[in-house]
Amino acid sequence: MKKPLLAVPKNSKVAYQGGPGAFSQQAACKVFGSELISVPCHSPDDVFTAVIRKRAEFAVIPIENTLAGSIYQNYDLLARRPLVVVAETSLRIEHNFIVHRGAGLRQIRRVYSHPAALEQCSRFLRRFKSLDQISFYNTAGSVKFIHDQGLKQAAAIASVDAARIYGMKILRRGIEDDPENYTRFLVLARKGQLPRGGEKTGIVFGLENQPGVLFKALSVFALRNIDLVKIESRPIRGKPWQYLFYIDLQSDIRSRECSHALRHLRELAPFLKVLGSYPVIK
Amino acid sequence: MKKPLLAVPKNSKVAYQGGPGAFSQQAACKVFGSELISVPCHSPDDVFTAVIRKRAEFAVIPIENTLAGSIYQNYDLLARRPLVVVAETSLRIEHNFIVHRGAGLRQIRRVYSHPAALEQCSRFLRRFKSLDQISFYNTAGSVKFIHDQGLKQAAAIASVDAARIYGMKILRRGIEDDPENYTRFLVLARKGQLPRGGEKTGIVFGLENQPGVLFKALSVFALRNIDLVKIESRPIRGKPWQYLFYIDLQSDIRSRECSHALRHLRELAPFLKVLGSYPVIK
Repeated sequence: MKKPLLAVPKNSKVAYQGGPGAFSQQAACKVFGSELISVPCHSPDDVFTAVIRKRAEFAVIPIENTLAGSIYQNYDLLARRPLVVVAETSLRIEHNFIVHRGAGLRQIRRVYSHPAALEQCSRFLRRFKSLDQISFYNTAGSVKFIHDQGLKQAAAIASVDAARIYGMKILRRGIEDDPENYTRFLVLARKGQLPRGGEKTGIVFGLENQPGVLFKALSVFALRNIDLVKIESRPIRGKPWQYLFYIDLQSDIRSRECSHALRHLRELAPFLKVLGSYPVIK
Repeated sequence: MKKPLLAVPKNSKVAYQGGPGAFSQQAACKVFGSELISVPCHSPDDVFTAVIRKRAEFAVIPIENTLAGSIYQNYDLLARRPLVVVAETSLRIEHNFIVHRGAGLRQIRRVYSHPAALEQCSRFLRRFKSLDQISFYNTAGSVKFIHDQGLKQAAAIASVDAARIYGMKILRRGIEDDPENYTRFLVLARKGQLPRGGEKTGIVFGLENQPGVLFKALSVFALRNIDLVKIESRPIRGKPWQYLFYIDLQSDIRSRECSHALRHLRELAPFLKVLGSYPVIK
């Protein structure tokens, strides 16, 4: 029985996208221990809603993968929806080419998986030009789908766990483009559920359209020796060619430097939201 | 007959992803006039290869959409493959829900399109929870597919042109989430085909993993009053949590400021590639 790494009430309800065997569920087990109560959700949007409407106390969402890059849909939801980040963790991701027992490579015509997983295996898939790639909402869900529908000419890409849970066969193991394949996950909660603070602070902000304004915004951290570990930009809907910037700081919001820097940033940024200040769970 | 806006030989061969009716083809017509010779390609990778292997003189690729964000696959290819950007243009994108003549909304079970188009229409699609979304390599190609295969229970999302070309019916017009939907396209060529220079300069660079290094990198432009219009970061494969940065500068590489700034950046960046310095075609 895995023990929780985050100090939370026992048997916390944790929302994540996908079903049994999903990588997000594995990340949730790492953080909350195996006593967590799973609240599987269909879409990233549903995951946020489950916590907002109190059907779950926490959510676990993937935010970045070392091969495919950021999970942009979740970045967009972090800016829009009223949840905060309370922890971060990461997992090594191994993808597998999963088919029905008895099926061989030759008869496979279609492959189902989450678009990020298809992208992480693009080199493997390029060898089979005639294979249709079908985006599915979740990796483990794609295994369930080809299993339940009896699709013998289809394969799914997912975890070893997902193959085992649905009694399917792994035809090729570890098909990701590069073994250095990790996904970073964020743990979300409603505001005030957990005290704020930890080694990392995430923010999102918008800037006026002025020359040099991003440089000025980054200077508020550089001037205080606060390290910036990630920057991401996303378009603002309805405002063509304008962006929201997401930044992860190696800094605790309870520190004097960090609070000064954010006060300084507010002078420049018409929009600023602190996404959370939280520990990294190794 | 549309005249070319870019000074290139008549009847230039232009590679783009997708078939007749693709938005990239429309962008190509805007830049090269309607006398261009189309070289349709299956994947973004094939588009680059067509120009490198001299099956085409130019390529037109989508790079950013105001609703869905950057086209990350093309960013990755720009860093890796030996082509340069020679012009930029943009198009207003209207998406349509396209079906077989005689088909009604009720019988539609699946919708095919490019993942970026599915994302740009996410609000419209959310209304039909039971609709399977299937990623296709191209918008116009998805219309051709449901047409050729006679899929009466399927819809495709694509341009009015694509519907017309394949004799299909538009069931709902303008289904994108927001009318401010534009895609920016880049025109690519082999090095030396066209003289370098124009109002915009695109670069990609990698930095050492040191505190404040991105701030220092941006300072080389801020110190010279060079405006930065776009920043994008992408993971480096095999180096977890390290990034390549893509920056668009409002600056001509032939100017003294720009060449000084890039020389300054080389002091900080172990990897720096100039993607091109080019005019923006309105």
